[in-house]
Amino acid sequence: MSLRIAIDAMGGDHAPLSVIKGVSLFLKDFHSHYPSLSLHFFGDQAVLAPLVKAEKFPAHVDIIHCPTQVQDDMKPLEVLRHSKETSMRRAIEAVAEGHADVVISGGNTGGYLTLAKMILKTLDGVDRPALASLWPNLKSHSLVMDLGANLTCSAENLVEFAMMGDSYMRYIVGRHQPTIGILNVGTEETKGNEALRQAAATLKELPDIHYHGFVEGYDIFRGTTDIVICDGFLGNIALKTAEGAYGTFKNVLSQTFQHSWLTRLSFLMARGRLKTTFGQIDPRNYNGAIFLGLRAPAIKSHGGADSFAYSRAIKIGAEMVACKGLNNHIQAKIQGIYP
Amino acid sequence: MSLRIAIDAMGGDHAPLSVIKGVSLFLKDFHSHYPSLSLHFFGDQAVLAPLVKAEKFPAHVDIIHCPTQVQDDMKPLEVLRHSKETSMRRAIEAVAEGHADVVISGGNTGGYLTLAKMILKTLDGVDRPALASLWPNLKSHSLVMDLGANLTCSAENLVEFAMMGDSYMRYIVGRHQPTIGILNVGTEETKGNEALRQAAATLKELPDIHYHGFVEGYDIFRGTTDIVICDGFLGNIALKTAEGAYGTFKNVLSQTFQHSWLTRLSFLMARGRLKTTFGQIDPRNYNGAIFLGLRAPAIKSHGGADSFAYSRAIKIGAEMVACKGLNNHIQAKIQGIYP
Repeated sequence: MSLRIAIDAMGGDHAPLSVIKGVSLFLKDFHSHYPSLSLHFFGDQAVLAPLVKAEKFPAHVDIIHCPTQVQDDMKPLEVLRHSKETSMRRAIEAVAEGHADVVISGGNTGGYLTLAKMILKTLDGVDRPALASLWPNLKSHSLVMDLGANLTCSAENLVEFAMMGDSYMRYIVGRHQPTIGILNVGTEETKGNEALRQAAATLKELPDIHYHGFVEGYDIFRGTTDIVICDGFLGNIALKTAEGAYGTFKNVLSQTFQHSWLTRLSFLMARGRLKTTFGQIDPRNYNGAIFLGLRAPAIKSHGGADSFAYSRAIKIGAEMVACKGLNNHIQAKIQGIYP
Repeated sequence: MSLRIAIDAMGGDHAPLSVIKGVSLFLKDFHSHYPSLSLHFFGDQAVLAPLVKAEKFPAHVDIIHCPTQVQDDMKPLEVLRHSKETSMRRAIEAVAEGHADVVISGGNTGGYLTLAKMILKTLDGVDRPALASLWPNLKSHSLVMDLGANLTCSAENLVEFAMMGDSYMRYIVGRHQPTIGILNVGTEETKGNEALRQAAATLKELPDIHYHGFVEGYDIFRGTTDIVICDGFLGNIALKTAEGAYGTFKNVLSQTFQHSWLTRLSFLMARGRLKTTFGQIDPRNYNGAIFLGLRAPAIKSHGGADSFAYSRAIKIGAEMVACKGLNNHIQAKIQGIYP
């Protein structure tokens, strides 16, 4: 399969090194799937050239020099106005102009959403694209959205998210009748605010949507529903709290096994299995959130992603390119309901 | 020390059994600290009498019959109007009338806040009491507030929370210069919404307050600041997500150790130590959130608390009664700043 990736090499806390190394890891694992691969790196030529050269990528590679970059503390409007020569914007434009199939960035989330929306355009009937990703849970995975692109959402936005998530789970993940929950402070119908209650009332009435009800923070991990809908503020806090919890667990467990010769021996005996388990629930494995609702694939890597995490985000991007029908599915669903 | 506790025996998902058993566990661990203990159970006499009798509490016990209870799906205004004969309201009134030193309930959070505010009154200058509790982190503990009582908060509310949290950490926990963070989607000053940015600007200027800046979900677990301030929506989602993460983690770890005879043997060798570790980070250990800003102590137990978790909430309540000076501290702080 042919794959052309536009990479904002300057976006992310550890960029560009984590980005270049991440691409390298991706190729190590998946190069055989993509014999015809083009990598377009957007960023500071002088910085990138030696890094890219050192990796000897087995792919077509070019570096597109961009003198500036979108800063993490820029507000969306500021990004709109002052991003002409930035690596993020140029990478997005490469997709819009047909030079690449997917764009990946670990930069400023709000700025990325604003630029992607303006340059790639939203699907007909979609007001706001949503940032979505799969989380591991006790059963398998659930899709959580929005994760930080839309900090406040109306009831209509949440309903739209639910429909896009439904398409994703059916079409990409293969769930037949995905159930949908709205994240709230309690499961009772009276809980939360007006937007949540309105969204719940609408979803309950929609044909071919399996609305479960309000869900709480722990339901994400219990796998109570296939899809969890929330505004980007809640989603972002939940995501990062879960990551923090994972880090703490790992840390205290490793201290526990260091306690005595007996616990150290115990660790050696279970090491292989523990490594597998920790790998399965490692948040880095789930890096790479998708902007659902755009006309072309755009992937957001976590700002703090290391190279391994970044390689996972590229994998998500490659999967999105392979599944060309998703947008038709979303489009039909949304237009069926808002004809 | 003398201690008189008013217990809403009907509040919580597993009430009244978890409540009665929780009191029993509390007495098992701490009875020696409170030779003069009175337990006032509020609820359905016919249900409670046999349960209470069976425990043979080594304390003065009475049951105050309340024909109804506050339902989980009642909105705060509904609770205000239709709670006259409920176990929650009567238990709060017992404190207001001087029959008890502290009230504990695992019932409807919003309803509890509304009633406690009306009956116990807030301290002078406090607009809204906040639900606060200590969370374990990599360094020790941090105070997170609000956890679900105030779903939307103004900048002024958040600043008030910060001042009350500061007093709690200094006076009860003994931190000399507690640092304060505001929970947000990023650490940059431009992130979040207007209320958060305004609160940050005010806190930065306050004398004797050590404002650190915005913090993210994982900072709660890293212990970046001693106090984390947020609205009740975010706090509730973060709390329950962390609990869900703990449950999943425990579950996958136990599956890991069941994998083969080798991993089972490994578990046996480290069991004692693992049990200690899991106990330390067990969310049940941290059950019992405090309404800071009320004139008398009111403790909120988690709705889903089991008896062990409930016993921890009673312990928190007992500690609050012992620390009579906290409210003077809060009062002075708030009036110094809003004279």
